[in-house]
Amino acid sequence: MPSISPLAPDHFPEMPPVAGVKLATASAGIRYAGRPDVLLATFDQGTTVAGVFTRSKCPSAPVDWCRAYLKAGAAAALVVNSGNANAFTGRSGRAATALTAELAAGAVGCKPSNVFLASTGVIGEPLDASKFGKVMDRLVASARPDAWYEAAKAIMTTDTFPKGAAAITRLDGTAVTICGIAKGAGMIAPDMATMLSFVFTDAPLTARVLQNLLTRGVADSFNAVTIDGDTSTSDTLLAFATGAAAARGAPRITQASDPRLAAFRKAFDAVLANLAEQVARDGEGARKLVEVIVEGAVSKRSARRIALSIANSPLVKTAIAGEDANWGRVVMAVGKAGEPANRDRLAIWFGGIRVAHKGERDPAYDEAAVSAAMKKPEISLKVALGLGRGRDRVLTCDLTKEYVAINGDYRS
Amino acid sequence: MPSISPLAPDHFPEMPPVAGVKLATASAGIRYAGRPDVLLATFDQGTTVAGVFTRSKCPSAPVDWCRAYLKAGAAAALVVNSGNANAFTGRSGRAATALTAELAAGAVGCKPSNVFLASTGVIGEPLDASKFGKVMDRLVASARPDAWYEAAKAIMTTDTFPKGAAAITRLDGTAVTICGIAKGAGMIAPDMATMLSFVFTDAPLTARVLQNLLTRGVADSFNAVTIDGDTSTSDTLLAFATGAAAARGAPRITQASDPRLAAFRKAFDAVLANLAEQVARDGEGARKLVEVIVEGAVSKRSARRIALSIANSPLVKTAIAGEDANWGRVVMAVGKAGEPANRDRLAIWFGGIRVAHKGERDPAYDEAAVSAAMKKPEISLKVALGLGRGRDRVLTCDLTKEYVAINGDYRS
Repeated sequence: MPSISPLAPDHFPEMPPVAGVKLATASAGIRYAGRPDVLLATFDQGTTVAGVFTRSKCPSAPVDWCRAYLKAGAAAALVVNSGNANAFTGRSGRAATALTAELAAGAVGCKPSNVFLASTGVIGEPLDASKFGKVMDRLVASARPDAWYEAAKAIMTTDTFPKGAAAITRLDGTAVTICGIAKGAGMIAPDMATMLSFVFTDAPLTARVLQNLLTRGVADSFNAVTIDGDTSTSDTLLAFATGAAAARGAPRITQASDPRLAAFRKAFDAVLANLAEQVARDGEGARKLVEVIVEGAVSKRSARRIALSIANSPLVKTAIAGEDANWGRVVMAVGKAGEPANRDRLAIWFGGIRVAHKGERDPAYDEAAVSAAMKKPEISLKVALGLGRGRDRVLTCDLTKEYVAINGDYRS
Repeated sequence: MPSISPLAPDHFPEMPPVAGVKLATASAGIRYAGRPDVLLATFDQGTTVAGVFTRSKCPSAPVDWCRAYLKAGAAAALVVNSGNANAFTGRSGRAATALTAELAAGAVGCKPSNVFLASTGVIGEPLDASKFGKVMDRLVASARPDAWYEAAKAIMTTDTFPKGAAAITRLDGTAVTICGIAKGAGMIAPDMATMLSFVFTDAPLTARVLQNLLTRGVADSFNAVTIDGDTSTSDTLLAFATGAAAARGAPRITQASDPRLAAFRKAFDAVLANLAEQVARDGEGARKLVEVIVEGAVSKRSARRIALSIANSPLVKTAIAGEDANWGRVVMAVGKAGEPANRDRLAIWFGGIRVAHKGERDPAYDEAAVSAAMKKPEISLKVALGLGRGRDRVLTCDLTKEYVAINGDYRS
């Protein structure tokens, strides 16, 4: 068991219940005995659902399942297991998803197509879904509204801390709640790093509105986080809206452009951003949280590409692990992004201190001040291109020997 | 000084002189005292030149210089220094290239625009080109045709062995020689990994023919090698053809389509491939040479992208460092490439042993045999997509803790 990331938050947040959502966890013995490895969430009738998934061309069986049944936009239950990703498992993988959904539907009393699924853990091993049958009734019986911490724990693989975030906001004057949990990029060979996140609200939102919130919200949160540039077959972000706040007077929102949605969208985005940041803070072997800011690019899209080129560069990431303000490698990463850049207009800051400008080392910079900034656990790295108004921000972590050790599975 | 890569060839190859080329090295004290850090090559009149450079949008000053003067296609000298890359040095960098070319031109007796330049080493530090003036006359005086080993040594940075390759072939019945040297991806912070290679022949080839040979030859050699996916600001591959073999009856080749060029092209490609493989064998911290073969893709271009996605995946590379045949991570890397792939048709081999097929683990595979294959210093990793006839091959190395140590520059 790796020790808790030095970048972890002090404590798991206070998370209020979300009306219409109940949670339960159990130990089904999917891979390891005696640790919770199944999460069941049940939803009141009328709950809508939206999702964003891995862009992998080889997605896992549960991702295929969710994509197929998301179109109807209605959810009654969510089943998540850790220990086995049910990925690259062929026909038996499809059968396992169907059986899991049937077992949950039978226990909850709904159609299998209203059950949503996610799996994380070892890949290429058949998932014995019959194990869920032994715990499903107990899960339904024990489900309660405030089991956020247990839920966040049950979906962990080699995460070093459980991840949760919550917000209370207003929808046209009525208080509504948003709660989310996530698991990040932890791996024990031959497991695969996978990002899973589930967000729940009692706001009355149609599935289309919820999908709009999610699709727009993910761009600057989960899609702006990178650990090693690798993409899991299983990445899944699902959002559920029970609508229970309607009983307290919240209006049903049917258009994403509805101005009454503005405050809610802001709070929803903040929950996603908080969860995504926690994923970066728990990157494998991470010792530094790195914020990469690119400004002055020809567009936001171009700024994103340059920021990702920097954030995914092994040479930049190892330099940060070494507390070295190696702006030469930043120039390299800007150059290799393939986006418009003019060497002689580049300026680079580490920890707010400008180390290079106009294509040269900044003669004024104070080496001692930069060294002190690089020793901090949170590092800001800013690049100004001087070409336009495109700006973007990406979070990542450093690349340490521990990353190699965690993923190297050195066999004796 | 890191120890010599375990993947290094047994010895530096026998390399014959190339008529019309003379080589000399010297210690100019660019960064370190007492080690050769300048290479001068001089060429007989009529020598043609061609080049391929980094795709970085922030190239070094010598790359800009070479690009500018390559159009004329005529070369009299080549000056390469190690210790300082003259990259991200702004106006002083441009002045340093001009001064270097003038000093060489004065000593050799040619126009500065016929002098080609390359630099590798620390970036962002001004290059004091006046130091070349102190050694230039001595370099010209001491230049001799057979100093290949010294030349290959002088251009090294943290390479653990000098890299050379040679071939003798025939051009319409006349023997001609091709010799090349290279330096690879070695780095000492804050230096930047840079690939430099220089190839010399006495074949009478126009600059256009030479450029065609180089552009076509690089695709399956240097462009099919990746260490960490990072791209130097300084990558430079130059080819020089003295034409001296014309005196022994070799025809002057003016068209790339000339059928008399076929054998020469094959030998030229082999020299490039040999040098590129040596670069992979000297990847930073490398303990395994990895050949990634992708077949059954929809096109060669698609196969290349998938092969690079696998070869650049930190998760695949750390698994190989750990001698773990982790095909799940290969599936992940195929999936993230964004190219057409069908999970349920994928087959994967490690060391010639099929470990997965039809989207599932191959039930027949022998774990012990795969483990034995993974312990070897050279690992073949093959993926068959089952979609088309596109095939490609890329060389890389594993990602080890030593890579992080070399690049992390852990400050105390």
